[in-house]
Amino acid sequence: MSLRDMKKADGIPQGVVSRLPMYYRYLTELNQQGTLRVSSSQLGEALNITAAQIRSDLSYFGSFGQQGYGYRVEDLLKAITRILGLDNEYHMVLVGAGNLGKAVASYENFKRRGFQIKAIFDANPLLEGNYLSGCIIQPVGKLEEYLADNPVDIGIIATPREASQQVCDRFVAGGVKGVWNFSPIHLQAPEDVIVEHMHLTDSLLKLSFRIREQADRQESVSE
Amino acid sequence: MSLRDMKKADGIPQGVVSRLPMYYRYLTELNQQGTLRVSSSQLGEALNITAAQIRSDLSYFGSFGQQGYGYRVEDLLKAITRILGLDNEYHMVLVGAGNLGKAVASYENFKRRGFQIKAIFDANPLLEGNYLSGCIIQPVGKLEEYLADNPVDIGIIATPREASQQVCDRFVAGGVKGVWNFSPIHLQAPEDVIVEHMHLTDSLLKLSFRIREQADRQESVSE
Repeated sequence: MSLRDMKKADGIPQGVVSRLPMYYRYLTELNQQGTLRVSSSQLGEALNITAAQIRSDLSYFGSFGQQGYGYRVEDLLKAITRILGLDNEYHMVLVGAGNLGKAVASYENFKRRGFQIKAIFDANPLLEGNYLSGCIIQPVGKLEEYLADNPVDIGIIATPREASQQVCDRFVAGGVKGVWNFSPIHLQAPEDVIVEHMHLTDSLLKLSFRIREQADRQESVSE
Repeated sequence: MSLRDMKKADGIPQGVVSRLPMYYRYLTELNQQGTLRVSSSQLGEALNITAAQIRSDLSYFGSFGQQGYGYRVEDLLKAITRILGLDNEYHMVLVGAGNLGKAVASYENFKRRGFQIKAIFDANPLLEGNYLSGCIIQPVGKLEEYLADNPVDIGIIATPREASQQVCDRFVAGGVKGVWNFSPIHLQAPEDVIVEHMHLTDSLLKLSFRIREQADRQESVSE
């Protein structure tokens, strides 16, 4: 077994994964501008990551870079698209058709990347039969039946926090291997089920940091 | 001017900032467990970042670490809390009381960290006078008046994408220095206004990557 295969079998570190969407967005931009190649230091400067970290990140996926030449933008973008699994279609179901669920269901940006919500469930009988983003809202009691009949890739949880672990357990029992969690609690799931938590608070913390930093800077200018 | 002051005046790189909430969450956990100190390699292992990157990140905020001793968890957490601006109160207003706006207004997790939504506006006259998370929904025409009378730290945009740039401009004209944008478009703002974009899609891309990786692994096991 080669070192690369070992790395692959061990899984890619979370830190690397968390930077892939950023690489993806930036390379898409470069590609649209017609840029043909980019060095790790250029990438690093644009994304504020050390060039060494970038070379280390990208080495997990094979050797795209050439000493003194950098990366071919199109090749790297293709590889990252494939690595991110964006050459696939994803069958998603949503549980929870409250405010957040409705917002997620109507979010346009990921639909064109192959992520499709095919069924929506809610515990509230008053919502039953209503339409949301082209799906009819079904009683959550029918979730098991749906999962038995349909291959679901991603289960989205947008329920109140009290219900989310139970919904997660039902996804797991129904064979769903990916869970996108919008409720603000940590979910327990078996190791082979991937849970991605949507951190609204992280984004707000970044904002408050930037505001504080800006205020500091203006203070020091006026001193 | 010392090197540190220069760095400070130049601003902290976006990549460093994007990792701060992760440090904050992990250190909070360690602190609650009663852990007293942590080395950069332990931090790195837990967060899947190289130890060198961690030392580089934290060096922006002063010298917390001691060679061969590591970081004092409590001190580092306190510093990061202050750095993130979490020792302040933030006065926020929300424009857009649709699904996403309602979801944001009812999100509990950041309220206890000093972020308070004090006023909510919407363009839909039918929503006027309704209550949402303890705020009365006001017509968006009253935004300027409100901004003139109240010091607002953060403006939240949860409008349809067509309206979001215009709302951003009105925040800027009213002196708001921080914008939290939930609409899926890039907003233009002057340099001294901080815009933080909530990337739902990034989170979904991370999930699809993990699912693909897991599927690969299982294929290679069954081969």
